[in-house]
Amino acid sequence: MPAPPEFLDWVDKNANTFIRRLKTAVEIPSVSGDASRRKDVVRMANFLNEELKAVGVTTQLIPLGTQEIEGETLDLPPAIVGRIGNDKNKKTILVYGHFDVQPAFKSDGWDTEPFELVHDEATGRLIGRGASDDKGPVLGWVNVLQWHRENGKELPVNLRCCFEGMEESGSEGLDELVLRESKPGGWFDGVDAVCISDNYWLNTRTPALTYGLRGLSYYKVTVSGPGRDLHSGVFGRTVYEPMTDLISIMSRLVDNRGNILIPGVEDQVSIADDDEKKIYAGLDYSIQDVEEAAGGKIALSSDKVEVLMGRMRHPSLSLHGIEGAFSGVGAKTVIPGKVSGKFSIRLVPPQTPESVDPLVVKYIEEQFKTLDTKSTLEIECLHGGKPWVADHNHWNFEAAKRATWSVYKKLPDLTREGGSIPVTLTFAESLGVNVLLLPMGRGDDGAHSTNEKLDKSNYLEGTKLLGTYLYEVAT
Amino acid sequence: MPAPPEFLDWVDKNANTFIRRLKTAVEIPSVSGDASRRKDVVRMANFLNEELKAVGVTTQLIPLGTQEIEGETLDLPPAIVGRIGNDKNKKTILVYGHFDVQPAFKSDGWDTEPFELVHDEATGRLIGRGASDDKGPVLGWVNVLQWHRENGKELPVNLRCCFEGMEESGSEGLDELVLRESKPGGWFDGVDAVCISDNYWLNTRTPALTYGLRGLSYYKVTVSGPGRDLHSGVFGRTVYEPMTDLISIMSRLVDNRGNILIPGVEDQVSIADDDEKKIYAGLDYSIQDVEEAAGGKIALSSDKVEVLMGRMRHPSLSLHGIEGAFSGVGAKTVIPGKVSGKFSIRLVPPQTPESVDPLVVKYIEEQFKTLDTKSTLEIECLHGGKPWVADHNHWNFEAAKRATWSVYKKLPDLTREGGSIPVTLTFAESLGVNVLLLPMGRGDDGAHSTNEKLDKSNYLEGTKLLGTYLYEVAT
Ligand SMILES: [Zn+2]
Ligand SMILES: [Zn+2]
Ligand SMILES: [Zn+2]
Ligand SMILES: [Zn+2]
Repeated sequence: MPAPPEFLDWVDKNANTFIRRLKTAVEIPSVSGDASRRKDVVRMANFLNEELKAVGVTTQLIPLGTQEIEGETLDLPPAIVGRIGNDKNKKTILVYGHFDVQPAFKSDGWDTEPFELVHDEATGRLIGRGASDDKGPVLGWVNVLQWHRENGKELPVNLRCCFEGMEESGSEGLDELVLRESKPGGWFDGVDAVCISDNYWLNTRTPALTYGLRGLSYYKVTVSGPGRDLHSGVFGRTVYEPMTDLISIMSRLVDNRGNILIPGVEDQVSIADDDEKKIYAGLDYSIQDVEEAAGGKIALSSDKVEVLMGRMRHPSLSLHGIEGAFSGVGAKTVIPGKVSGKFSIRLVPPQTPESVDPLVVKYIEEQFKTLDTKSTLEIECLHGGKPWVADHNHWNFEAAKRATWSVYKKLPDLTREGGSIPVTLTFAESLGVNVLLLPMGRGDDGAHSTNEKLDKSNYLEGTKLLGTYLYEVAT
Repeated sequence: MPAPPEFLDWVDKNANTFIRRLKTAVEIPSVSGDASRRKDVVRMANFLNEELKAVGVTTQLIPLGTQEIEGETLDLPPAIVGRIGNDKNKKTILVYGHFDVQPAFKSDGWDTEPFELVHDEATGRLIGRGASDDKGPVLGWVNVLQWHRENGKELPVNLRCCFEGMEESGSEGLDELVLRESKPGGWFDGVDAVCISDNYWLNTRTPALTYGLRGLSYYKVTVSGPGRDLHSGVFGRTVYEPMTDLISIMSRLVDNRGNILIPGVEDQVSIADDDEKKIYAGLDYSIQDVEEAAGGKIALSSDKVEVLMGRMRHPSLSLHGIEGAFSGVGAKTVIPGKVSGKFSIRLVPPQTPESVDPLVVKYIEEQFKTLDTKSTLEIECLHGGKPWVADHNHWNFEAAKRATWSVYKKLPDLTREGGSIPVTLTFAESLGVNVLLLPMGRGDDGAHSTNEKLDKSNYLEGTKLLGTYLYEVAT
């Protein structure tokens, strides 16, 4: 069913209230990765908890245990779970977001103080750390609930929420919480679908729904030989040098067109048929978009479908660097004694770390053998995560499509993201339900970067979108 | 002519005097690379100057100007030039050494305080920073002169000396001084040959004379494309990644047997004939020696001649590392936007940076073209130095051979070093005379490393050797 027109009107009239709410949130530097900011993350949890209670949510702050960080034992910030409604005739929707943020210092290159919300009237931008990732979207839900509370309106669905304060630091403690609360009697028992607003449109123009995320397998390949670093004057051309062997191995993993040279890895993935290609062809995206975002004329192809499929539905292998080699400025004549090459593969269904890792290990071992070297090899799989793809024809997505059309008068781009949001998989697997990624911000919001912003129009229309989604998903 | 037997006796009897002298010197932490130690380098210059004057040398402290270090302008420590004798019927010999040292902290892994001289009676080692590099050899000359002074004996040669305090920091200011003082009327005018005691035996058993040093050409190859570092989730398989191209280029420079793959570079060097190979075959050296020194069973060959020629008379190419890539511990999923590979080639005659650099640049440009990439390439030659080889049948070397036989009852190993001592070339070219490298310490002295030591026997026999050399070279 469509959202009440009074709600949509009210959103337009209350922009200043919403911006003040976001301003208060941004001013709390809830950086989860900085031990000295932990108290601010807790302060942010308390602020959000009060906001939620004020708009009628029954909440609980859930302690998540402790964490070792920079040598001290710290309490993890609590997660917030909440509920409104328990009507057997209504669908039950779980919404997720996070109230912690990435670190930010003005000296990183910000034009404004990162922990002050600056409303740039000329561009309509709301600038500040966390504005888009993920305080704006989280407060979008609060804004929606405020209207219902103030006007005595019942929600069209039973709502459950889960907001955490450790997303930017590996979501420590969350998997256990989700698993526990998904069981009978738990806070998430009976959830019919999940909606996560914590990613971005593909571009700056067209709303998006996201139905896929790539997984990851990260590798560390160590080649060693000498007992320590050697002087290249004394030892050059007398010993096997680990760097020479490592560089040779690293050069055999991927070509510069992105083709993965490890036998079997590409074969695991289906070839896109015409129907699937049509999805990518229909996305509002251009080669210019990717090159602007990358800051260089370096797209792998001039065919937008190919580039989009490269990011969204093909695995990719990137060489990240080398640990143990000379990495400073200037000229050091060292033969590094032990070097570790780092690379990772982004995975797509049906790939999993378990299906890919053995192929990688086998190939590198074989290639290393061909080097006939006296250096020794060690391969470690540092961490991994499965890819995720949801059914984008599910009623959960259909509701979001109708909501998008209703608010934006546009069909959303149906996207898959190249990166990972691990909690998505946690919800999908723990609850066994459809998960929808419903982004509020634009592709140029600069989450994790300097001058992070959320456009005021995205904040307002996004608030309408989240509210409208709840009505559309109800039926 | 042989050295006076009374001199040799006297050396044995005055060990404690020499050790006290070295102890005083080691206790002055004359670290030239540490701005906060600059006053200690000057203190060391003054100490050495007084020692020289006390044994009859006419000296002058020569200011070398200023230097920018860690953001401050510092006076360079003075060099010491000196002379004894001006007899037209005698040869004039210039000796060189340095009184500055490498940094050292106990926390680096020293078993003793680095700036205290510890005499380990069990092993006969004199342990302390600078004991072998290069305070021991410099004071060896002082010891020799002390005997002549105390006994009213004239030296068999005219002596000139040049001691500097910036050797471990690029010998700043020295080239200009040598060039200036080599001219008519300068301190080094009329020098017939040079003797430098600032390197090491090939092993721990056999004295050595060194007649060659490799040169160096250092390269920085930069590949760039994106405007900044990119997220591998978002951009993996959508853009040309600079690391992929750089690793590919770096893999084409050298094979793991040490063969340089850049066309023309190996061809510049002659093939060793049987006579030359005999020199290497005759050296007191084993594969075990190189593997012990390297700390691993990683020698390129089981043939000692091949391994020694690899270090001494062949060019070598070592890959040092990458600037701009991820080099830390852990797992970072970055696509580095701009990466610079560092490598260098050790040069042997007749190679020069000028003859090698164009081959390197041309090859890398050609190879880069075959990659057909949208990344861009920049090649820089960071610094270079020519190799040096002296005539080891020159009367300067013949004198050192006789002196070695006389003191050690052994023929010296005739060695070439794989590294560089740039001042050697400065003297050879400025003065146009034969330069002899006459090491005092052993191959395991650990110059630049922890627990640097000079064996007491090397200090005493080395003092005899330097003295005897002056007599043998006189005739
Ligand atoms: Zn986020
Ligand atoms: Zn984030
Ligand atoms: Zn030295
Ligand atoms: Zn040194």
